[in-house]
Amino acid sequence: MSRLIVAFDPEGEPLRYWVGLAGELCREIWGVKVGLPFLLRYGSSSLREIRGACDKSLIADLKLADIEPVMLSSVSALRGLVDAVIAHAFVGYAGAIEGLRRGAEEMGVKLILVASMSHSGSEEVIDPAFERVLEVIRRAEPWGIVAPATRPAVIAAIRQRGFTQKILSPGVGAQGALPGSALRAGADYEIVGRYITRSKDPLATARAINLQHQLVLGSSGGAG
Amino acid sequence: MSRLIVAFDPEGEPLRYWVGLAGELCREIWGVKVGLPFLLRYGSSSLREIRGACDKSLIADLKLADIEPVMLSSVSALRGLVDAVIAHAFVGYAGAIEGLRRGAEEMGVKLILVASMSHSGSEEVIDPAFERVLEVIRRAEPWGIVAPATRPAVIAAIRQRGFTQKILSPGVGAQGALPGSALRAGADYEIVGRYITRSKDPLATARAINLQHQLVLGSSGGAG
Repeated sequence: MSRLIVAFDPEGEPLRYWVGLAGELCREIWGVKVGLPFLLRYGSSSLREIRGACDKSLIADLKLADIEPVMLSSVSALRGLVDAVIAHAFVGYAGAIEGLRRGAEEMGVKLILVASMSHSGSEEVIDPAFERVLEVIRRAEPWGIVAPATRPAVIAAIRQRGFTQKILSPGVGAQGALPGSALRAGADYEIVGRYITRSKDPLATARAINLQHQLVLGSSGGAG
Repeated sequence: MSRLIVAFDPEGEPLRYWVGLAGELCREIWGVKVGLPFLLRYGSSSLREIRGACDKSLIADLKLADIEPVMLSSVSALRGLVDAVIAHAFVGYAGAIEGLRRGAEEMGVKLILVASMSHSGSEEVIDPAFERVLEVIRRAEPWGIVAPATRPAVIAAIRQRGFTQKILSPGVGAQGALPGSALRAGADYEIVGRYITRSKDPLATARAINLQHQLVLGSSGGAG
């Protein structure tokens, strides 16, 4: 099973470009992550086309960070279209993540919470609040946790604290982390965007990442 | 001039309901705020219809909380459609708000940063990081700041620290704060959603809030 999630970050392409890429990469990936720019440009119905081209996990990386009724309304708008949504634990449990977790579950959508981010500015406010953020995650018991491949010590710290959730790590490739580095630190999936989608041969790049993952994991589990 | 921003939070209505409401309320409001649920349901092009019905300030409350290139890509998708976007200061300056601020300015979109939120969970992580969040806002020099009407002491604290930006306050009405309470504490605008949009007579409710605002401000400035 592949440990690779490809992130689709549009820069002016028509939707059919991404639909084609989803089909091309499908055998090599665990899932596709689309963010807010993708949904604002192509609309929610575009998710059906991506799913049609590649029926694997589809994650809406909305980075939800609002009060409960607003976050639930956003998830409701994507109900039946995505498998999981990403929200910020930073907004707190009461009146926010508590209701989102319950509501998302009822809608059959997995919840993934951000513990830390991949850019340097994460060290200004989010990381000093790390223990408080983890406390929100502990209470929420989400399906998954986002932690940055660019700072593998953060991934290791989450595992050391006993969290058994799936860890998804962005920051591999264009942001500087090497393929496999997050898996080695304890992550379950690596999220790769531009490094694959802007490469001359996205399929070959995805295959090379999967090979690297297999080396790191030392397992016989191939991609596909 | 009205100090009232009406928030459009959909619950399954057709878009024409909101377009009609924008037209009905237009003379009584300073602007309209739409959130992520609105954009996910109706698409970005719906903003043109809202603008067509009421050519006042239009704020996209995306609660952006991502790395710089992703946030810029979201703003770019709404370029020419909105006057301002709301982002979270807690993502930090480096690699996030710094570039967003510059990019939004180049796109002619005002930046509004969240200092604190209106729900109780804001006290778990965001409020203990208050000084760090304010430091990001100080460096970014955004057009506006979001601070909750439900905790007027937070608004007063921002003013006491010398911030001269516009302060926009959600939490009035359905979330419990009285109309006028945020203005009294130092805010410039009060954001009211369900209290107006779910009332039997939205126009009369908006007028009543404007009257309350005039009492609090003790000015002769009427709505419109």
